[in-house]
Amino acid sequence: MQDKEYLMIPGPTPVPPAVYAAMSRPVGGHRTDEFARLYMRIVEKLKKVFQTENDVFVLTNSGTGALETAVANTVSPGDKALALITGNFGERFAAIARAYGAELIELNFGYGNDVDLKAVEEKLNEHPDIKVVLATQNETSTGVCNDIAGIGALVARTPALLLVDGVSGVGAIEIKVDEWGVDILCTASQKAFMLPPGLAMVSVSEKAWQVVNGNRSPRFYFSLPACKKVYGKWNTPYTPSVTLFYGLEAALDMMLAEGLDNVYARHALLARATRAAVRALGLKLLAEDRCASNALTAVWGPEGVAADELRKIIKKQYGVAFAGGQGDVKGKIFRIAHMGFSDKMDVIIAISALEMALAQTGYPVQLGAGVKAAQEVFLGREQK
Amino acid sequence: MQDKEYLMIPGPTPVPPAVYAAMSRPVGGHRTDEFARLYMRIVEKLKKVFQTENDVFVLTNSGTGALETAVANTVSPGDKALALITGNFGERFAAIARAYGAELIELNFGYGNDVDLKAVEEKLNEHPDIKVVLATQNETSTGVCNDIAGIGALVARTPALLLVDGVSGVGAIEIKVDEWGVDILCTASQKAFMLPPGLAMVSVSEKAWQVVNGNRSPRFYFSLPACKKVYGKWNTPYTPSVTLFYGLEAALDMMLAEGLDNVYARHALLARATRAAVRALGLKLLAEDRCASNALTAVWGPEGVAADELRKIIKKQYGVAFAGGQGDVKGKIFRIAHMGFSDKMDVIIAISALEMALAQTGYPVQLGAGVKAAQEVFLGREQK
Repeated sequence: MQDKEYLMIPGPTPVPPAVYAAMSRPVGGHRTDEFARLYMRIVEKLKKVFQTENDVFVLTNSGTGALETAVANTVSPGDKALALITGNFGERFAAIARAYGAELIELNFGYGNDVDLKAVEEKLNEHPDIKVVLATQNETSTGVCNDIAGIGALVARTPALLLVDGVSGVGAIEIKVDEWGVDILCTASQKAFMLPPGLAMVSVSEKAWQVVNGNRSPRFYFSLPACKKVYGKWNTPYTPSVTLFYGLEAALDMMLAEGLDNVYARHALLARATRAAVRALGLKLLAEDRCASNALTAVWGPEGVAADELRKIIKKQYGVAFAGGQGDVKGKIFRIAHMGFSDKMDVIIAISALEMALAQTGYPVQLGAGVKAAQEVFLGREQK
Repeated sequence: MQDKEYLMIPGPTPVPPAVYAAMSRPVGGHRTDEFARLYMRIVEKLKKVFQTENDVFVLTNSGTGALETAVANTVSPGDKALALITGNFGERFAAIARAYGAELIELNFGYGNDVDLKAVEEKLNEHPDIKVVLATQNETSTGVCNDIAGIGALVARTPALLLVDGVSGVGAIEIKVDEWGVDILCTASQKAFMLPPGLAMVSVSEKAWQVVNGNRSPRFYFSLPACKKVYGKWNTPYTPSVTLFYGLEAALDMMLAEGLDNVYARHALLARATRAAVRALGLKLLAEDRCASNALTAVWGPEGVAADELRKIIKKQYGVAFAGGQGDVKGKIFRIAHMGFSDKMDVIIAISALEMALAQTGYPVQLGAGVKAAQEVFLGREQK
């Protein structure tokens, strides 16, 4: 029926009523004390999520704009950039660096695999003049979570900056910006932050500022020095998306009220239940448990059933939206997001719809078997 | 987590986004051409749902106010009223008639049973001076649906009026006001009409108007003649709940876009799936299939488990709100509403939460078995 829809794509994700309510207040001016106080409060709360004392900026653009902000402010033409690629969004980060004239060194680990730290160490040793390392925390296209702590420890020994795409991970999966040595962390509103798209959040380390301030690439809207100039006054250089700022504070308040440890534990639980259910249905997971994302689960289409056909049935007949494959695995996988405003019953809905659609395609599925496996995880009765 | 709630009580029921959107437009004046046109359109649409050419009024009060409107306009002190009682709301209808001085003849069929037409026929023959017959279409407290067509055929042969409480039924279960001879049909906004509470809708037949116009009970806010006086101008005698009128039109548009036959078929499907699931879990249904409601399913608490304890777990741990028992079955049953903005996945959520809560109370439940039974109904693969 109309309006009965379940958004399980990796962004935009469902928006909670409390966030919609905050966003529906009349828009105010952004050159006001009220806005400055709001921005200050938001940054204080974001610092808790980022686990950082670094400067944190809220930018009015999407996640890709955040990645470009990181690159435009640190990469000058001819600079060496080491791109750690584990899927479509790793490729995008590299493409942005290429657009800014970087001399790219690519380490591509393939769809479904995570970053191999040994390979990173070798490249860093081989090229002591690498200026930036581009890494993805949660690779949205594959449901792989990379070891940012491990990468950070390697990069910290070098003069290079570590730029991290945390667009689909931050808020769902813990990140420790200061402890792990993340020089620029990029994230966005429409994933684990439970907001519509339109805002990006970035943090900038002391080590990064040295490079940022001297960088020679053209930048205006994405200029971090322009942000920094008005940061103490809690102002923004250009017009901010005021309504989304209202929503961001409401979302942060929800996350902090739940407790960040609980938020991360909830995402881990949902991932475990989803993976147990997929296995119980005899389907294959793209990522190994070792590097599986807590925010999104990618599943290979079953033998003889087109993954995109399955998605069509699930959307049309049950109102549940899964994401398809991208890049190398386009048409071969489907992806179930369980990030942000997502809880146990969302996994039940996803798996139940999947079961029925599988039955409709003639796949030999045991109805209820996936749901049972998820329920066992929720009840702490997992089959080992 | 905060805000992740599933309302499965028999009113208020979940409100669709399109209805919230309609209600969030700025409130307009009610003595305007714009409001008159809105009211006219709403009545035209309601007539399709009621299947009537009778006058239909939208009143600013809850369902009980609609029942009182029916009584206050037709029952004068000393009038004989035949009350057909099948649960708590049948008792309430009788109590209202008693408050207006009716000489009550009660036929109480007990919780879980439907009206026995033979008993009705006998009483009508025994008391040819009965002035009104009070019947409940869908008895919300038990999940029993009464045969309004059958009752209507008996009452039509007498001078008595048939007053029907359709509060939780209309919009979910077909009713044919004109064909079945319903003289006053009462319903409300917060059940199958997918709105917040605050509006009631009543239809009044030609036969009813003869009685209404001469009735001697005091009435002012509930005066049907006062409504009728301004009906041609599409006005209301007192201030209407304008915002809910906006929502009502949006909800009616959704229902008519889906098609009323499809709306009724959807409710029938959800009831069948819920009942199959409950049976698969080894639990007992309060109502027999023969008279089971398509809008709500009442289930006996399992042996050794307090029904209200089960509801507490389901609400607290899974965010799913079931209703408890009322009157004679208080504390002994729980009730799952599947009315209004409800579809397949809501049944899956309800049953999955029930399964997990049963497991937590130590009840020997086979996880996933209820979900499987519901899925089979949805796939047209019911076990007969």
